[in-house]
Amino acid sequence: MQRLMVAVDIGGTKTRVGLFRDGSLLFRTSFATKGLAEVVKALRVLLSRAKAEPYSIGIGAPAPLDMRHGVILNCPNLPHWNGVEVVTELSREFDCEVFLANDATCAAIGELEFGHRSPDFVYITWSTGIGGGIVSGGRVVWGVEGQAGEVGHMVLAPQGPHCRCGKRGCLEALASGTGIARAAAELFGRKLTAATVVRKAQEGDVAAQRLVLRACEAMGQGIGILWEIFEPEMIILGGGLTRSWDYLGPFVLSAAREFSRTPPRVELTPLGDDVGLYGAAALYKHIPDLR
Amino acid sequence: MQRLMVAVDIGGTKTRVGLFRDGSLLFRTSFATKGLAEVVKALRVLLSRAKAEPYSIGIGAPAPLDMRHGVILNCPNLPHWNGVEVVTELSREFDCEVFLANDATCAAIGELEFGHRSPDFVYITWSTGIGGGIVSGGRVVWGVEGQAGEVGHMVLAPQGPHCRCGKRGCLEALASGTGIARAAAELFGRKLTAATVVRKAQEGDVAAQRLVLRACEAMGQGIGILWEIFEPEMIILGGGLTRSWDYLGPFVLSAAREFSRTPPRVELTPLGDDVGLYGAAALYKHIPDLR
Repeated sequence: MQRLMVAVDIGGTKTRVGLFRDGSLLFRTSFATKGLAEVVKALRVLLSRAKAEPYSIGIGAPAPLDMRHGVILNCPNLPHWNGVEVVTELSREFDCEVFLANDATCAAIGELEFGHRSPDFVYITWSTGIGGGIVSGGRVVWGVEGQAGEVGHMVLAPQGPHCRCGKRGCLEALASGTGIARAAAELFGRKLTAATVVRKAQEGDVAAQRLVLRACEAMGQGIGILWEIFEPEMIILGGGLTRSWDYLGPFVLSAAREFSRTPPRVELTPLGDDVGLYGAAALYKHIPDLR
Repeated sequence: MQRLMVAVDIGGTKTRVGLFRDGSLLFRTSFATKGLAEVVKALRVLLSRAKAEPYSIGIGAPAPLDMRHGVILNCPNLPHWNGVEVVTELSREFDCEVFLANDATCAAIGELEFGHRSPDFVYITWSTGIGGGIVSGGRVVWGVEGQAGEVGHMVLAPQGPHCRCGKRGCLEALASGTGIARAAAELFGRKLTAATVVRKAQEGDVAAQRLVLRACEAMGQGIGILWEIFEPEMIILGGGLTRSWDYLGPFVLSAAREFSRTPPRVELTPLGDDVGLYGAAALYKHIPDLR
């Protein structure tokens, strides 16, 4: 039996699992996110199809999580996972080492190992929420409990819109998909997704354009701050909103230039929606020694 | 002849030099900052008094500098140092290895080696200007050219006061000694130092209080952002304005709490004005491999 790296990326709507050898994604599947039982089942099916056993399992999941004890905590988007001791459960089930980390940090590891491979960058997920992962000198910046990189919760506008975290004017409240949708609901008086708002803006709706521009300016301010703090080689973006980068990119970049002393280099991840899955496969190499 | 670590901290007004053995500061002197000749002379006198030769020389200086080539660049506060190849000159003069780094990064190294010794912290110099140095997982976050940690140039208020860097609303423009003094000049119509403004505020002058509060709020916002991004063990402050910490601290801390999801732990460096000198003495241990 061959031994393969197993990667799991638990998202708010979709869970992706993949089997890797030497950084190549050999087998993969995805399904609507439910709970642990569904992940175990999908892994069993995939491993049997590959005639493989797991070498180790890496899992990326949205914060908050307890990395030290391998537990997914009270995440509003993952009702089936609240308090699940995923590391203990999966290592018992598959008899191998299991590692759990923040999904945006996994994405940064994916970028480090299989993307641009820069030793100095900040990765930003621009999606329903805004998360981040940081690599400096080829090493992940983990923070004390593995929770570093929360770039979505930089307060950029103290009098700005309320954020789900309880503060006001976080980058996430200003620029995330949720933030854009909430502002659109107030403006248009009906529910619109961020993707719809962006489409309306592209089609020439001035109110939608104003709203999108404000989100892009906040993202540019955040990028400018990260550029000054880290002096990275590049800032790398991924996540659903980057699908509209042709339209959004110029607004983000001109704002970012205004907010930093040298023009930030901004790239999109070449790994697309799989960036977190790739990172989960390489997570075992980067686990910090939490004190 | 014993061999001692030599540390040089070149400041805008004062240059400090010291001789260290095993992290103990054995001999020291300081003098008004001029140029290279004065540093060479002071080192010769100190080394001869100590009957010692230099093991290595570490130098901290304000940005901008070219760390790769050991050159101090166009720093407005250091007219005698513009373009001086300080690493080449001193290594020729003293026949030992010489290292040059940003002064705030040196201060962070001083904190790492001789202060709180935390492996995860952000150091902020709150003085005439605002600088910073970052340590993650026991390692300095250097950035691509050793210029990371420029926390003073985070843009916090896009419509805020002009910064000497050309941008608007940088933390430095809002909260540094220079920023406070400039706002005071506009408000009171005459030149006042930041220290005087703080004293007036403490004595009950409402206009001065408003001005100081605004600076403290900006510092709190900056601390909140750094707390979210790094998840550090602590944020450590040093620099001239921390001499008034008894008065300023509560304002800074209450703002910082408002701008982060968990209350930031903020400490003052126990090394006082010598924090950068201590760091310069240990700089040789932390030099990055710039590509």
